Formats: sequence, structure tokens, C-alpha cells
Amino acid sequence: MKIAVLGTGGGARAHTAKLLELGHEVCVGTRDVEATLARTEPDMMGSPPYKEFLAAHPGITLLSFGEAAAAGELVISGIDGHNAVAALSAIADQLAGKTLIDYAVPFIYQHAPEHPWPTPWGVMPKLDPCDTDSLGEQIQRALPATKVVKSFVTQEQTTVVNPQAVAGGDHTMFVAGDHADAKQQTIDLLKAYGWSDILDLGALVCARGMEMHTHLHEAIRFGLGGQELGGHFGIKIVR
Amino acid sequence: MKIAVLGTGGGARAHTAKLLELGHEVCVGTRDVEATLARTEPDMMGSPPYKEFLAAHPGITLLSFGEAAAAGELVISGIDGHNAVAALSAIADQLAGKTLIDYAVPFIYQHAPEHPWPTPWGVMPKLDPCDTDSLGEQIQRALPATKVVKSFVTQEQTTVVNPQAVAGGDHTMFVAGDHADAKQQTIDLLKAYGWSDILDLGALVCARGMEMHTHLHEAIRFGLGGQELGGHFGIKIVR
Repeated sequence: MKIAVLGTGGGARAHTAKLLELGHEVCVGTRDVEATLARTEPDMMGSPPYKEFLAAHPGITLLSFGEAAAAGELVISGIDGHNAVAALSAIADQLAGKTLIDYAVPFIYQHAPEHPWPTPWGVMPKLDPCDTDSLGEQIQRALPATKVVKSFVTQEQTTVVNPQAVAGGDHTMFVAGDHADAKQQTIDLLKAYGWSDILDLGALVCARGMEMHTHLHEAIRFGLGGQELGGHFGIKIVR
Repeated sequence: MKIAVLGTGGGARAHTAKLLELGHEVCVGTRDVEATLARTEPDMMGSPPYKEFLAAHPGITLLSFGEAAAAGELVISGIDGHNAVAALSAIADQLAGKTLIDYAVPFIYQHAPEHPWPTPWGVMPKLDPCDTDSLGEQIQRALPATKVVKSFVTQEQTTVVNPQAVAGGDHTMFVAGDHADAKQQTIDLLKAYGWSDILDLGALVCARGMEMHTHLHEAIRFGLGGQELGGHFGIKIVR
């Protein structure tokens, strides 16, 4: 299947590498192809220059956001929450009729110099939107012809593409969206990633809970032993 | 041990009954003792009149909030999130020097007639405070001489006092607070309730994550089968 991954950060790379491994044709979208290829320093989250990733993962087609979206039959957005609505709105035509999986959390701290980030107690986000709206819903409103699914949010993306790395894979992944066929596509992809416990929460409004869970996720991560030690966990809904 | 439970709602009743069963001396605090005893209708959450609960659970001493707080060596607040800061501030002297466990979620929907509650998609709360503050932190600021611990939040209280009812008890309970001795008291109580996997998230700022998790909790509850069917689950942090 031809899948577009929008973004070149760490999370997008995890999906890109896994999708290649699963035999998919992967188009990666970036804001500015030349700038992405020219970069020689790690990005703000510490990922090495993208050209190193490209060299290590032959078969990737690097395109603009719009070209990648146009090429993909299924689209995964790895665009950060702060920029997602604007960047995706600009390519609404290329995304029309397609399933778009969004996993971003609408952090604002790292974009607001007046707020220190990471915070003194760890990486505790400030979210916008929050509580009465969600990024997933904002994207769906901005792209009414696209089928938006919120998923992957409650885990590091390296765990999303490799659930077996935690507790033998026995933990829970959530999906939410207003389009049943798009959710099914997402569930199929998650199964290919190795997930067996996938809980459909219902309508896209449930994206609020996934995004807001980030506070507890970060608290658990630090509770388990700091950013380095604590990142390797999952949540299992037991019943 | 002499334990004060502030509140007469369903959650407070769960703790009261369990603490009696564990052999503690339980003082229950209510806003107005006479009004509580006079009530003959179920409360807004459907709990039967408190006098029926009292009759079924001999040994409870029903007092005012202040009298109960003064009598308790340890205090559990079952006061709803909307009223907690005001009600607890009014009895700050009686709470000074004591551990106060707060499990409330600062819902505002049910107190705001302009917001329907439950919402059309289930019981999805609107929270205030949220994201950059929490009810737990507000209570601690209002009661600087009290040791506030946030816990019990991520579960129905009937499950908090009986963790074995879900998945044989193999799920996770969180605590957060700025006072190590008060957290240890809370952990000891949770162990007596039957919890074995108790995760100390750290400082009270982590109350934000617990309170905000309510959105995901409610979404999971509905995802599992509606208010009635879905209420019986836990979250297990696997690592």
C-alpha cells in the first residue's frame, strides 16, 4: 500500500521505518525538501539529520507535504501539534477523501518562550486546545472531506510501531474517529504493527481524553525513573 | 485509627464502609447533619438517603465537616470538586498538621446549567482548573499547614476500596503529593484496601495528570460498553 507519512521528526521516522519493513511504499512529506536534506545538526528533539535516516532506510520518497499527501492512499500525520492545523489545511485538497491518522499532542510550552519546557518537574505539557476541544477535532473541522482518526497518542511512537517491546505487547491502544471505515484502516495498521488489544473509544470527541492523558503519561514516565529510565511502559486496560 | 471521611456521596460511602470493615473508627463529616439525616430522596447521583446507609453500617459518627476533621487523625475528602476548596478552607484549622487525601475531579458541567451533563457522547467532563493547575494543588495552597495527597482519582471509588473486583487486583493506583510521610500513610491505606501496584508519581503537580485523565477514563468506560457495562475496569501500567 502507498502510505504517506507527513513529518521527519522522531515519531514520523519510527512509522516510516516500520512501514518500509512491512513492505509498504512510503512517501514522506516535509515542509521544505531542500532544507530537510541540507540540515546537518540534530533537530530540537535530538534526532540526527534526516539525510542520515534516508541513507539508512532506502526506498523512501521524500516530497513536499502536498505531494506526499497526494501520493498516499493512507496518510499518517507526524506534524507537531502546534503546526498541524495550518500545515494540513494548506493541503486539504490533497487529503480529501483519505484517511488521516493524527497522533499529535497540542503542546504549546516548547513554542512559548515564557513557559520553561521541560518544566522543573519533568516534561509536563501545556495543551491548547484542551478539555472542551482537541487537536483531532480541530483537524477534522479544518478538513471536512478527510476522515480523521486519532490514535497512537498514548505511547511513544517507537512503542506504537513495536508494541512487543513492552510487556510482550500486552497493553492497550486506543482509536477514535467519526468514520468507521477509517477507524478500521487504522485498526488494521495497528494489528500489522503487532497490537492485539485495540479499544475503539467511539467518536472523535474522545481525542480529548487521549491528548489530555499526556499529563498522566509524563507523570508516570518520571515516576518510573526519569526521562531515560521511565519511557518504556504501556497502559493496559484490565477488565 | 480514627479516620474522618468528609462527604456523604457514593464515593465517600465506599470509603466509609471499607474503613469500618477494616476496623477503623470512622467519623463522617457533612455540611449540615440535620439536613443529611432528614433527606428521604436519593441524591443527584442516585445514592439512597444517607440515613439508610447509616442504619446498614453501625458505628459511624455523623458530624459537621469541622467536627469530623477535628476528630480524624487522617482525613479523606469526598467533597465534590466544585465545592472542595471553599468547604475545606472553612475548616483549615481543624485540618492543620493532618494528612488530607483528596480524590475529587473538578468537574464543572454538572454545576453549569448552560452545559448539558451527561454530554451527548457520554459523561465527558469540563474541568476547572485544568492543565496549568489542579484541584489538588488549589487545596494545598488553601491549606498550607495540611499535607495534601492526591490519589484514588483514576478509578471509581467502589473499585478503589475493592481493587480485587477488577482483574484480580492487578492494576495500578497512583499517589502524588509534596509530603513524603503523608504519601506513605496513603500508600499504607491503599495496601490495606488490597492494592499491590501503587505508583508514586512524585510532587503534587502530578495531580493534574490524574484529574485530566478523567476524560480518557470516561471515554474508556463508554468504549467498553456504556455507563453501566463499562464501569468495571482498571488501568495497569505494564513495564
